[in-house]
Amino acid sequence: MRLVTLFTGQWADLDLEAVCRKASGFGYDGLELACWGNHMEINKADDAYCASRKKLLDKYRLKLFSISTHLVGQAVCDNIDIRHKSILPDYIWGDGDPEGVRQRAAREVIATGHAAKRLGINTVNGFTGSSIWQYMYSFPPASEEMINQGFADFARRWKPILDEYQKIGVKFALEVHPTEIAFDIVSAERALAALDYHPAFGFNYDPSHLGYQGVDYVEFIYRFKDRIFHVHMKDVYWKENPWSVGVFGGHVPFGDPRRYWNFRSLGRGYIQFEEIIRALNDIHYEGPLSVEWEDSAMDREAGAAESCDFVRDLDFKLSGIAFDAAFEKK
Amino acid sequence: MRLVTLFTGQWADLDLEAVCRKASGFGYDGLELACWGNHMEINKADDAYCASRKKLLDKYRLKLFSISTHLVGQAVCDNIDIRHKSILPDYIWGDGDPEGVRQRAAREVIATGHAAKRLGINTVNGFTGSSIWQYMYSFPPASEEMINQGFADFARRWKPILDEYQKIGVKFALEVHPTEIAFDIVSAERALAALDYHPAFGFNYDPSHLGYQGVDYVEFIYRFKDRIFHVHMKDVYWKENPWSVGVFGGHVPFGDPRRYWNFRSLGRGYIQFEEIIRALNDIHYEGPLSVEWEDSAMDREAGAAESCDFVRDLDFKLSGIAFDAAFEKK
Amino acid sequence: MRLVTLFTGQWADLDLEAVCRKASGFGYDGLELACWGNHMEINKADDAYCASRKKLLDKYRLKLFSISTHLVGQAVCDNIDIRHKSILPDYIWGDGDPEGVRQRAAREVIATGHAAKRLGINTVNGFTGSSIWQYMYSFPPASEEMINQGFADFARRWKPILDEYQKIGVKFALEVHPTEIAFDIVSAERALAALDYHPAFGFNYDPSHLGYQGVDYVEFIYRFKDRIFHVHMKDVYWKENPWSVGVFGGHVPFGDPRRYWNFRSLGRGYIQFEEIIRALNDIHYEGPLSVEWEDSAMDREAGAAESCDFVRDLDFKLSGIAFDAAFEKK
Amino acid sequence: MRLVTLFTGQWADLDLEAVCRKASGFGYDGLELACWGNHMEINKADDAYCASRKKLLDKYRLKLFSISTHLVGQAVCDNIDIRHKSILPDYIWGDGDPEGVRQRAAREVIATGHAAKRLGINTVNGFTGSSIWQYMYSFPPASEEMINQGFADFARRWKPILDEYQKIGVKFALEVHPTEIAFDIVSAERALAALDYHPAFGFNYDPSHLGYQGVDYVEFIYRFKDRIFHVHMKDVYWKENPWSVGVFGGHVPFGDPRRYWNFRSLGRGYIQFEEIIRALNDIHYEGPLSVEWEDSAMDREAGAAESCDFVRDLDFKLSGIAFDAAFEKK
Amino acid sequence: MRLVTLFTGQWADLDLEAVCRKASGFGYDGLELACWGNHMEINKADDAYCASRKKLLDKYRLKLFSISTHLVGQAVCDNIDIRHKSILPDYIWGDGDPEGVRQRAAREVIATGHAAKRLGINTVNGFTGSSIWQYMYSFPPASEEMINQGFADFARRWKPILDEYQKIGVKFALEVHPTEIAFDIVSAERALAALDYHPAFGFNYDPSHLGYQGVDYVEFIYRFKDRIFHVHMKDVYWKENPWSVGVFGGHVPFGDPRRYWNFRSLGRGYIQFEEIIRALNDIHYEGPLSVEWEDSAMDREAGAAESCDFVRDLDFKLSGIAFDAAFEKK
Amino acid sequence: MRLVTLFTGQWADLDLEAVCRKASGFGYDGLELACWGNHMEINKADDAYCASRKKLLDKYRLKLFSISTHLVGQAVCDNIDIRHKSILPDYIWGDGDPEGVRQRAAREVIATGHAAKRLGINTVNGFTGSSIWQYMYSFPPASEEMINQGFADFARRWKPILDEYQKIGVKFALEVHPTEIAFDIVSAERALAALDYHPAFGFNYDPSHLGYQGVDYVEFIYRFKDRIFHVHMKDVYWKENPWSVGVFGGHVPFGDPRRYWNFRSLGRGYIQFEEIIRALNDIHYEGPLSVEWEDSAMDREAGAAESCDFVRDLDFKLSGIAFDAAFEKK
Repeated sequence: MRLVTLFTGQWADLDLEAVCRKASGFGYDGLELACWGNHMEINKADDAYCASRKKLLDKYRLKLFSISTHLVGQAVCDNIDIRHKSILPDYIWGDGDPEGVRQRAAREVIATGHAAKRLGINTVNGFTGSSIWQYMYSFPPASEEMINQGFADFARRWKPILDEYQKIGVKFALEVHPTEIAFDIVSAERALAALDYHPAFGFNYDPSHLGYQGVDYVEFIYRFKDRIFHVHMKDVYWKENPWSVGVFGGHVPFGDPRRYWNFRSLGRGYIQFEEIIRALNDIHYEGPLSVEWEDSAMDREAGAAESCDFVRDLDFKLSGIAFDAAFEKK
Repeated sequence: MRLVTLFTGQWADLDLEAVCRKASGFGYDGLELACWGNHMEINKADDAYCASRKKLLDKYRLKLFSISTHLVGQAVCDNIDIRHKSILPDYIWGDGDPEGVRQRAAREVIATGHAAKRLGINTVNGFTGSSIWQYMYSFPPASEEMINQGFADFARRWKPILDEYQKIGVKFALEVHPTEIAFDIVSAERALAALDYHPAFGFNYDPSHLGYQGVDYVEFIYRFKDRIFHVHMKDVYWKENPWSVGVFGGHVPFGDPRRYWNFRSLGRGYIQFEEIIRALNDIHYEGPLSVEWEDSAMDREAGAAESCDFVRDLDFKLSGIAFDAAFEKK
Repeated sequence: MRLVTLFTGQWADLDLEAVCRKASGFGYDGLELACWGNHMEINKADDAYCASRKKLLDKYRLKLFSISTHLVGQAVCDNIDIRHKSILPDYIWGDGDPEGVRQRAAREVIATGHAAKRLGINTVNGFTGSSIWQYMYSFPPASEEMINQGFADFARRWKPILDEYQKIGVKFALEVHPTEIAFDIVSAERALAALDYHPAFGFNYDPSHLGYQGVDYVEFIYRFKDRIFHVHMKDVYWKENPWSVGVFGGHVPFGDPRRYWNFRSLGRGYIQFEEIIRALNDIHYEGPLSVEWEDSAMDREAGAAESCDFVRDLDFKLSGIAFDAAFEKK
Repeated sequence: MRLVTLFTGQWADLDLEAVCRKASGFGYDGLELACWGNHMEINKADDAYCASRKKLLDKYRLKLFSISTHLVGQAVCDNIDIRHKSILPDYIWGDGDPEGVRQRAAREVIATGHAAKRLGINTVNGFTGSSIWQYMYSFPPASEEMINQGFADFARRWKPILDEYQKIGVKFALEVHPTEIAFDIVSAERALAALDYHPAFGFNYDPSHLGYQGVDYVEFIYRFKDRIFHVHMKDVYWKENPWSVGVFGGHVPFGDPRRYWNFRSLGRGYIQFEEIIRALNDIHYEGPLSVEWEDSAMDREAGAAESCDFVRDLDFKLSGIAFDAAFEKK
Repeated sequence: MRLVTLFTGQWADLDLEAVCRKASGFGYDGLELACWGNHMEINKADDAYCASRKKLLDKYRLKLFSISTHLVGQAVCDNIDIRHKSILPDYIWGDGDPEGVRQRAAREVIATGHAAKRLGINTVNGFTGSSIWQYMYSFPPASEEMINQGFADFARRWKPILDEYQKIGVKFALEVHPTEIAFDIVSAERALAALDYHPAFGFNYDPSHLGYQGVDYVEFIYRFKDRIFHVHMKDVYWKENPWSVGVFGGHVPFGDPRRYWNFRSLGRGYIQFEEIIRALNDIHYEGPLSVEWEDSAMDREAGAAESCDFVRDLDFKLSGIAFDAAFEKK
Repeated sequence: MRLVTLFTGQWADLDLEAVCRKASGFGYDGLELACWGNHMEINKADDAYCASRKKLLDKYRLKLFSISTHLVGQAVCDNIDIRHKSILPDYIWGDGDPEGVRQRAAREVIATGHAAKRLGINTVNGFTGSSIWQYMYSFPPASEEMINQGFADFARRWKPILDEYQKIGVKFALEVHPTEIAFDIVSAERALAALDYHPAFGFNYDPSHLGYQGVDYVEFIYRFKDRIFHVHMKDVYWKENPWSVGVFGGHVPFGDPRRYWNFRSLGRGYIQFEEIIRALNDIHYEGPLSVEWEDSAMDREAGAAESCDFVRDLDFKLSGIAFDAAFEKK
């Protein structure tokens, strides 16, 4: 049975020790630390800091498998504007000049890899940003050349980071997600190709961002079976009947009942986790199942507790006996 | 029975007389003229030009109900970039300075209204552009204030145009469409509210842009029953099962079989036109049914011909006798 | 290929000759005459009258297979109230005393059988009424005994009519329909049982009254294969998604777009006529396919014409060669 | 988390203390008392009686939020017949003269409001009856005028009751249900309009009577967000494939496997309670969730116990933190 | 509540006592013993052996209701080939001459009935084999005569066995299953008819072999309500969307993710057990619910434990009170 | 637009000239000749015979693209038994010794290739047989080795035939079909691999044999885009709801209404031909669309005529203009 961890990104308003205490009480085996709030501060992450973080987790018998840099990672190849100020540390935002922000973000992601190494782990999850997400549905049409340039820009900015990661034995796992360079199976293939299949690059699998789009999230696992470096368990609901707002969201905020889709506490949405577990077994994924809990309608403590139980009830060990042997007997 | 017209936007590579000859041969009753190519040139559209256009249509016994300014309209409140150069006349693009482009586009849309008037019609269809479409799914998150500003910008730029239209008895019909200020029911309501329900503003109803999103395109008709100024008949196909590319399109060009959705010749997609016809009857829409033909896999002449037949077979006259009277007898 | 007839019930506001002229023009092979309006007047139906009706149909080359007494039949075992006045001839309504109305209606149905005989046909379609339809969903609950009494009342009132029919070689075909003694498969079985499977009693099969209820209208044909005396072709639409009004109708009149279901011109609703034709072939039904046209949103002349074409395109001859022989060769 | 109560209507064959003991053992927080059996006897309900009922509930630590008058309420504007005798106390049935029964029932409903007041609660649930339910699907057709008269009769008989309720600060909550004046969204709107939106009139929301009809029971909550005075949790199953009996019930008793629909123990039917809980959160409903347990195939004690657990597992607290704050961090 | 047993066929690699210990630990009430491995050895099954088996089960407080002879039963009327060697004891396989194998198998099945008797039970479950399964989809076509001969061969070989069973008061329950003489409703009817409805012949109901074929497994229960002698609880998953392999299996082994269907641990597949329990209640089946656990992807011990819980949570007692009485009160 | 041909396999009871006359009358452009009946007799097919066949077709202005050897091809690697006698010419059946039959059949298939050459065409359609179809669902289980042997036997027997075909420039197109070595996507891949992707081996695509199995027949086209040598247009219906007979067929003959699936005249079944046409366009298939008409319930002449019309209405020319150009303008 895989271990069940809690991603701390939705709890960054709390001190890390408070999160440890709660997660442990909910029954989690470990944490996936967000590199924001005070959970994992890259600019302080020397050996002593890393040791103290490990010690804190140990105190609550929580394991660590990965750290996550969604916010800073986003800035590496994004079109930077005022929205980024609210998600970046001041020392990365600086004067807000886009190219400067992107370069400082790239250096921070490298530093994050080194911090991971210091923590004794080998996986950094995160976002990459994308200079072409805005052309997702574009009118006037974006030319194929503009799209190619977006993937080239991604590769140009991320390859040096990945090279450094490879040197130190760390991997970067992109959470495939709208707004990122990869957001479905085809764009994930194209991102890999743009990087010449760099061995340090893979995916933080999260079905919730694929299901409501109509992307085959079970097939995703088989297609990228050697690149699933980490797994998020996150649920989502979407409308089965036509509605006032469609999948493009109608400029309506999360949680509004008019929305076409919303994230949900595990087991309360439409993701078929049974099929995911079986596919993860088929590809022999043995890492943690990391709950990213988000449900704008529900108390997060109750939700995080029930989601931990949900994953434990669902996950199962592989068969220990050969199937054919059993069948021969019956 | 409503008249069936052909929108000339997909035929702008041809001389208008060639289009007239073909459309007439396919069986259409009229045309909806695109304000690009040489079909309807606003900068030449004095009385003599307009009279000659009318005469040309008359020669082929084709009626005219509306003209369409999708390309220039798009520039009125869009974030202008290099993509716009390919869709705008040189005299509007000018030096490409965004604010200048937007203002020249706004003046051109007003001129388009006057040209409509000169043609003896009262409907201009088109796009509006949107400064916030890029925030459709946004990370970092766009604030509610940024969204509000987008609607305010739309209202500030379009109200003067609409005031002028109202003065001369012409209406503007936005084709609700991704990339525009309104792209589903909720954003259409918000656009109307932003304009304080300006009487000169309504919609060019087109189900194809709503269906694949999961928007209830039949409900749209009832919700905006007094604002349906014009109707496009356009079909679209979408995947019913999860797939490699989702609704966000995977940066894959139209026509690629990996796409989640593609436009199709009428009757070959998933739009339920029967329900649309009934709803249009219920709201007493008596304008033309204008075929916007687009199917990247199919010969356009064969498609335009079959689509004209499709609309004629489908459309029907309202009942001439009271229902209750008939029922009493049975 | 079966012959296609038009039921005149929805055209009773017109003189019969006008209906003949239209039906012939629409392409029908014959008529199913309603016993109301001036189409078939039972109180005048002596030999001369019947001969003149036949002659009128002959003039338009129209055949006759059945006549229909829905309105008077309804009164035979119904709870009579003021609503019945509007559907009954004065000489049957009389003073409106319920028992008197029921007995006069019963005598009229017998007379209708004799008229059929005089017309040279052997089928009378119609309704039966029901004293227990009002207990369909009942609170306070109706006891099983009350339901039994309803079927007993039906049998008591209809058996004498059917005996008389049997004597003269005529059959009565109930259109299974809400408000009647039988409205689904189980109640149809119970009605037959209540009559001790009287040989003169069977059904005028009409899928439109079954489909929106969730009754298996194809199975109906197989279940009652020896009792399908006549067939109505009538289409109906129903909502596939939950809605403001449910199947009980919300006291909303026919044609209102808020309704859960409405009758429709053939091919525009949800009835799977292909399966019906195949089932009718399987049971060797060789009578006419009689179009009962009703669509509160559509011009009835256009609808009747398209429905005749629809039935002709759909219906097909049975295979003339043995299947096995063909298969052996391939 | 809302409190979970048990409606005692299906347990009226037992003495109230026995029901208290069982409900407490099953884990319920309170009861919704039926005004029949010996649970809540309106004709005895003076101060002493009411105090003793409260004391009995207190003994088992059970709370009280509402009492229910489905049986007597039904008689207020129904067409009274012999069926009503079995559900009414003798002192209301009296000689069975319809108008007398209706007037005595109306007075009893007023007395029920006073009893509620004496019990310290402000909600009376119940039925209203309907003089026009029998015209649900009517042939001969009921005129629009007849339907209007039914709503007028309802208003005429219920307004005086509601005025009295308003005076004493009590509300009447109709359980929207076939056989009542309101049975779907449209008829519920019409009932409210008939009462000029009387502030003392609202609904005892129960999805089980809506789902199998095809009525959008989640939309119902949003549509009447200020009128949801009380909530029943009751589940129902219906056939997804066509069948021998349709939704009109085939005169087949509850529990018969041939039925199209049957009530079921919670979680064993088709009602999507997850969506109901979210909608109730959206409208800030903070009253009890009252289990009305009915499943003709299942032992009621086992069923009531599992249903209490089901509701507790499903219900959840609203989010305590602002959504945007969480999102900004991720 | 019915008792829950575990079928030992998938555990025949373990010593019976080991299975008893595990099954008891998982919470089962009893076992269904496979007549292979060392669980139930027919060639040793004298009184002493049978008594010792009973004693062993008693030691673990496990009940016995049936024994199962799928492997030997299969050989009775199958086309014997090399595959059968691996599933038969040497003393039945002998020299492998087909007719000799079939006759020895038939004698063994009779001996199995006597062993059942000695164990104090009256049900033997098993397979029958079929000489015509290979003509399931046949090209060149199999003639109707060949099919008839297959059923005749089945009857000729099984009637003597069943006669013997009847004499000693034991019944044979065929598990309806592809590869057997009966594998759906129609072939089950035909098998019964071929045996002239022999009273000793019935079915070991197992929905998993019917569901993925598209056979109505709930209807099966009602159709054969007097012949359901035993029940297997086994779940199965199948693809809802078209796929690389279809229902015929593509010569791909069980557990391969490309397969169209696979068996699954209870509750993780598509079988609607709720409807099965209700149907079993309707026909008053009071025997055990025997879990046949098979899931090629899952650890069998975890699976057998969760499946026992699943059945207990699902199963329920029939209502102890008359339905009508309850309804009268509400 | 592709040409539409009629496969003569279902018309082999008629003289070829009779078939030519009918096919021409139905509107077909050509024939696909069956190598049985007197349509194409391989043992007589010298130059003169072939010239006369061509001349006969020319007389009716019918084209020829392929000939078909389903019956003889089946015998090449099948397990020969008495069923084969009815489908083989006497000179191939001979004494019926299986190995002799298989070798004579192989020689005949080579001769068929030479005949094709003589006819001036390069495609022979047909079946291959399979020694392992009987293990499709097998109990006792077939070992993986037995399956491998089946594919090896297929390769051993067919490679010499294909080598000869390659020499003379002819291709063999297997109709993927239950009972053959390939019957879905995975087995088709395995068959190709077994032949080391022999260039003379490909497929006669026929969706009807894939759809009811649950095989993705549109994906089949993309997967084997270079191996689609010929295309059959054939429709099939299958049950959407569970039923008495499942997909394994219940030993019930074609045409029986209890069957799960049956072939149908084009447009009357469930195959989505629209998607097939688009996929064939995407892979640039330019061969004929050959109607294989089979519908056990329908007159074959009416069916063949309507099916020709159906294909012509559905098929369409590819777009003659680049999509991007059109889009730029709008």
